[in-house]
Amino acid sequence: MADYRAMWEGLGMDVKTHDLLCEALPQAFGDVYLSQENRPEGMDYFNMVVAEIHGIRPMELVEHHKKGGRVVGSFCIHVPDEVVVAAGAIATGLCSGSQFWVPGGEKKLPTATCPLIKASLGARFDRTCPFFRLADLFVGETTCDGKKKAWEILAEDAPMYIMDIPQMKRERDYAHWRDDIRGYIRRLEELTGNGVTEGSLHDAIVLLNGKRRALQRLSDFRKLDAVPISGKDVLLITQIAFYDDPGRFTSMVNKLCDELDQRAREGVSVFPKGAKRILLTGTPLSIPNWKLHHLVESLGGAVVCEEMCTGIRYYERCVDEDGRTLDEMVDRLTERYLGGIHCACFTPNSERVDDILRLAREYRADGVIDVNLKFCNIYDTEGYFVERALKDAGIPVLGVETDYTDQDAEQLKTRIGAFLEMLGA
Amino acid sequence: MADYRAMWEGLGMDVKTHDLLCEALPQAFGDVYLSQENRPEGMDYFNMVVAEIHGIRPMELVEHHKKGGRVVGSFCIHVPDEVVVAAGAIATGLCSGSQFWVPGGEKKLPTATCPLIKASLGARFDRTCPFFRLADLFVGETTCDGKKKAWEILAEDAPMYIMDIPQMKRERDYAHWRDDIRGYIRRLEELTGNGVTEGSLHDAIVLLNGKRRALQRLSDFRKLDAVPISGKDVLLITQIAFYDDPGRFTSMVNKLCDELDQRAREGVSVFPKGAKRILLTGTPLSIPNWKLHHLVESLGGAVVCEEMCTGIRYYERCVDEDGRTLDEMVDRLTERYLGGIHCACFTPNSERVDDILRLAREYRADGVIDVNLKFCNIYDTEGYFVERALKDAGIPVLGVETDYTDQDAEQLKTRIGAFLEMLGA
Repeated sequence: MADYRAMWEGLGMDVKTHDLLCEALPQAFGDVYLSQENRPEGMDYFNMVVAEIHGIRPMELVEHHKKGGRVVGSFCIHVPDEVVVAAGAIATGLCSGSQFWVPGGEKKLPTATCPLIKASLGARFDRTCPFFRLADLFVGETTCDGKKKAWEILAEDAPMYIMDIPQMKRERDYAHWRDDIRGYIRRLEELTGNGVTEGSLHDAIVLLNGKRRALQRLSDFRKLDAVPISGKDVLLITQIAFYDDPGRFTSMVNKLCDELDQRAREGVSVFPKGAKRILLTGTPLSIPNWKLHHLVESLGGAVVCEEMCTGIRYYERCVDEDGRTLDEMVDRLTERYLGGIHCACFTPNSERVDDILRLAREYRADGVIDVNLKFCNIYDTEGYFVERALKDAGIPVLGVETDYTDQDAEQLKTRIGAFLEMLGA
Repeated sequence: MADYRAMWEGLGMDVKTHDLLCEALPQAFGDVYLSQENRPEGMDYFNMVVAEIHGIRPMELVEHHKKGGRVVGSFCIHVPDEVVVAAGAIATGLCSGSQFWVPGGEKKLPTATCPLIKASLGARFDRTCPFFRLADLFVGETTCDGKKKAWEILAEDAPMYIMDIPQMKRERDYAHWRDDIRGYIRRLEELTGNGVTEGSLHDAIVLLNGKRRALQRLSDFRKLDAVPISGKDVLLITQIAFYDDPGRFTSMVNKLCDELDQRAREGVSVFPKGAKRILLTGTPLSIPNWKLHHLVESLGGAVVCEEMCTGIRYYERCVDEDGRTLDEMVDRLTERYLGGIHCACFTPNSERVDDILRLAREYRADGVIDVNLKFCNIYDTEGYFVERALKDAGIPVLGVETDYTDQDAEQLKTRIGAFLEMLGA
């Protein structure tokens, strides 16, 4: 820990305030994660990564900096990490999932802003997150009103680059997004001094598809009757996917999956027989936001799928690897990163409803919880269609709105408990 | 009134519920408007229009329908009415400013949606506004999350056409918006069966510039030391501008201005000497939302300018009339309707701050009230820059958030009263 303190100080962090976070996290992690029974051994790696989340990986980024490398932070799964990797930089997620950072964000932003955005700005302005000190470029996007306008404020303190996500998916929107990806390549070349070449972009696409395939392999175990890993653990792994070295991460996920193969053969489940299978859909759950999974699984349910940015949306669809020229590869990225993600920021976005219905079947969900981070208008409004479609399909659905505080814990517990009971748990 | 009832029934309205609105409006209008002293005689026309707002103009639209004409409703000043007029259709505003319609909207939309959007959906789904029955086409846009997603729900009941407003103002965004205007022209030609020609589009540009110039002429009187018309009255006129026949409206505004010329020569003011001059900035005030003007002016202040969609943003900038070909005219519309409106939906949007500082000088404002409709994230977030810039310029500023209810009337009264007092009123 001594080494980390020196690093944090070197990064200009408010170490004293940050200590409060370091003190709280182990307890929270212990309560939610280490208390689980029959966890796969392969979780050890991920436990370690979280235990030293502001230490191990930041240290690697510092080393990368020392060698003249660059770090690029982003907040949205529409931003193609392939470009960052192809330019020889390191991509890191920056979405913040703790109430710890919210008050700092509220100094700059309206209270009626989603906690994810408030926490992200708080993490930067309060200087209490190493990733927010280490990024050489902050890549924002225009996915929602809250983010779009928050980046203007963040830009007063951090070097920002904005990608302009189209609001529809017509042919000309694809052309627009293609232009934006090209612009992003140029910006990364400028930042790193490295050219993005056919070879480096192809390798990056293959590398990140490997990560996606590993996550999908992990996810497939959740379709089994005997689910060999908790929803909580898969959520944690997905959250770590945004921060970790992609090659190492992929191999650790595959190693875990090898272990799960054995469990699958033996029919081992971490859940009691008859545990009700829950699909979560809605807004992202950034680390360390484990609240809903913890509630559902503590109440005897099993979270089997997340139709979320921190879930299926992040890894279900790969980038086609058949692009040979740079232009073709950019086309493939455009298709994947516009056509392959069904965020509520698009109008219309009926493909998301199709996805939810399909996933509910594939993962054999007994019920769906439609989760909304407070003040996220786009997912909240789209819930009108999501919940109606589920009801029409005869799939029970519970809509919940929550933030990063624990104030609604009891109320959520009651509502989710009643929902599971209604499903016959 | 008998005629109107038959018309409302013919439009499929819920006349019984609508009666409640008809009963409430005269009292509200009387309290806010007719109680004013020394009003210009030219206000008689606008009083009449409001007194029968769901009668006189809807009746004209019904007549237009009978002759095979079309009515196009829209919700945003980025949508170019010139196209509608050039196609021989009638353009009408649809933004709703009364709490009366909010509960109906809340049946479909999240509570944490701005009241303007909720009221607009409520007006349609509850069938309590004739304009929402008369429009043959509803033109939505992607200006904010709340609207973008609400149109998907409205589309289940009303014929929608969506214009995709860019989120930035780069060269390619102008190209994008130009394409959108072209698409809108094609859609209107399809709707009306009339071609939009060089002649008809030019005439429409001239007609609507006439309306803008009349409103600017009216606005210029508010720069005088002795302000000859109340802010409330100008707000009402601006609100009516969205509904009325543009030619008649323009002549009535100019007639009023002739009367105000006389007052200006005589130094007649409707305000007591030394009344503090207030510039309002922020979200729109749709009819019959008169709350803030009424509060400010009842407390002895004078509203001298609105940097709002229902204000300066609507009329300050004209469309260049020098376009000769259709393409050139579309270019001029693109410049005006993208470059000439500084809505908080754009990122960045520093031109709005420049506008506010300039307007505060031009209208010699003693203070600025930054108004936010509850749950409008974009204006609320941008308030960070607006209020800082005003403070830096030494202009006192008060930020207020409000909705369509009267629940905050006392609190606002106290705060605005204190603000005026602080200004030395």
